[in-house]
Amino acid sequence: MSETPLLVRDVAEEALLARIFPLLPTAPTTLVGPGDDCAVVAAPDGRYVVSTDVLVEDRHFRRRWSSGFDVGRRAAVQNLADVVSMGARPAALVVSLVMPGDLPVDWVTGLARGLADACTPLGAAVVGGDLSGGDQVVVAVTVHGDLEGRDPVLRSGARPGDVVALAGTLGRSAAGLALLDAGRGEVDEGLVAAYLRPDPPLAAGPAAADAGATAMMDVSDGLLRDAGRIARASDVVVDIDPAALADDREGLRPTAASLGAGLRDGQGARVGATAVSPADDEADGEGVADLVDGWVLSGGEDHALLATFPADVVLPTAFRAIGTVRRAGGDGPGVRVDGRVAQRSAGWDHFRA
Amino acid sequence: MSETPLLVRDVAEEALLARIFPLLPTAPTTLVGPGDDCAVVAAPDGRYVVSTDVLVEDRHFRRRWSSGFDVGRRAAVQNLADVVSMGARPAALVVSLVMPGDLPVDWVTGLARGLADACTPLGAAVVGGDLSGGDQVVVAVTVHGDLEGRDPVLRSGARPGDVVALAGTLGRSAAGLALLDAGRGEVDEGLVAAYLRPDPPLAAGPAAADAGATAMMDVSDGLLRDAGRIARASDVVVDIDPAALADDREGLRPTAASLGAGLRDGQGARVGATAVSPADDEADGEGVADLVDGWVLSGGEDHALLATFPADVVLPTAFRAIGTVRRAGGDGPGVRVDGRVAQRSAGWDHFRA
Repeated sequence: MSETPLLVRDVAEEALLARIFPLLPTAPTTLVGPGDDCAVVAAPDGRYVVSTDVLVEDRHFRRRWSSGFDVGRRAAVQNLADVVSMGARPAALVVSLVMPGDLPVDWVTGLARGLADACTPLGAAVVGGDLSGGDQVVVAVTVHGDLEGRDPVLRSGARPGDVVALAGTLGRSAAGLALLDAGRGEVDEGLVAAYLRPDPPLAAGPAAADAGATAMMDVSDGLLRDAGRIARASDVVVDIDPAALADDREGLRPTAASLGAGLRDGQGARVGATAVSPADDEADGEGVADLVDGWVLSGGEDHALLATFPADVVLPTAFRAIGTVRRAGGDGPGVRVDGRVAQRSAGWDHFRA
Repeated sequence: MSETPLLVRDVAEEALLARIFPLLPTAPTTLVGPGDDCAVVAAPDGRYVVSTDVLVEDRHFRRRWSSGFDVGRRAAVQNLADVVSMGARPAALVVSLVMPGDLPVDWVTGLARGLADACTPLGAAVVGGDLSGGDQVVVAVTVHGDLEGRDPVLRSGARPGDVVALAGTLGRSAAGLALLDAGRGEVDEGLVAAYLRPDPPLAAGPAAADAGATAMMDVSDGLLRDAGRIARASDVVVDIDPAALADDREGLRPTAASLGAGLRDGQGARVGATAVSPADDEADGEGVADLVDGWVLSGGEDHALLATFPADVVLPTAFRAIGTVRRAGGDGPGVRVDGRVAQRSAGWDHFRA
């Protein structure tokens, strides 16, 4: 017998805020904290970077998989990743939370703890927010950062001859989601955690800027798509070396094989971004490789940092080279994998060596 | 025969963004605009103020009453009001928009125009945003402002002897909403517009700070409740002079009378915050007065600016004196109307002269 949890509709807004406030991360850059019409935040650099990202229940997370802590952590991380991708240090977040009345109060306090879990190591504070009722949970976070005198690292600065480098992992979040989708989370709890509570090396962002990164962004929509954004913004070709991603692929192969078997047993027709066609045993090895390649090349939400550096730069810790920047030729800017045009919809199979 | 409108589910996100971007307000303080991981905004003061407010469909607006333009304007105004209430100049907004697939594209472009309509006169830009699908429309705005060297005007600075002053109107938004609720919008289109497209004197906020305002906030939840917040934060009594609100009340009386008649005709049992009991003609004058007083004292969303000033200050244009700040006595801080304890739930009737 489980006790009925206290629901947000059972408590007054002020009582709910009184539970949340002590859990929120604080920082010395907050000059006026929550509770007035606005917070006041220090901007010693004379500029601030700002970005906003929203998580919507049943679009970006499911409450049966993600705790409030998980959603809070993920909402913070995906926003913090945008700040560090500019080469800035995260400083302050504000959070709007829309919630149905039957949401447990513990879910909301968990969300606050998850925000703190992601923000505290980076020295970022939650300085304000808004609560509202609504039909589904929506978490809208706006994040701010301090460039500390650095030039912002834009998507448009990649130059022919630059090294393409990555800090963090690819495909693990997508594989974790695929496991949850298939009801097979027990296959690899580490991958499930990578999806539920991403933990990219965010401190590598300002370090990349200090090292001279020419372009940077976090991989939130998949390597091919996001590398394509740098390519188009910089009017260059980003050429990925598939050999540099061999470890990412290798680490996901057992899970893909296990899921492929599960799919053959009728547990699902489509997993992640890639349709698997387990027509016969002959095709199975191919199906597993497709699954892995789909996760690594097109899986989003790992929030690894993708950056370009001049070729003579010693890559900062956490970064590894995964390709090169080339001049855009007659077919324009874009992404190549081992020199061939990457067609995201077709997945990796066109490029496998 | 009306043509089927183009819906957001019929267009790609990038195509939708391409329609929105040219409509968004811009400003020279935007150093890097939308399109990268973050925007970069100038903070010449070395600080910025920041606040966030969310509008949820069927909680804060109804699509059958409010166009996209209306919602965009209202979302901007209620956020801008928070910035000017600190004595800051609005500089930059980011906007997260959650929307169902059947939302017309024209509604979204209308929202962008509404944001611009509110921001442009103040020199504020929309510098970023996020789009997502969801079951209902959610507009989460985060707003930033520049103190331009001023001390932030907090809620906690009111001092005994100060004058309580107001810039803007009270009750008009609540009365407009009551008209819409009753299906009687034709009674006073000006009041309906005050609800749908609030237009408080936002420029008065920095002017109040320059004049030496000791405390300030915008009236978003009703005069009694918001004055109570200043009272508690400052540990004082805010004493409102009802005679100073006579014009606000007088202007709403014809609408209340009309609605009272409508209610007598069975068009609704309860309007706005106040129950109307039209038992007989004798009680009707009383019911109308209650309705008016409820709107003026407890109606929210006019976003008038409520401020306190030292008694010797010449109030800046747009402000009028509506009361005085007194030392909190034995019954603690709070709001009085003509010296008597204001009980919000009981409405104005306990205080009428």
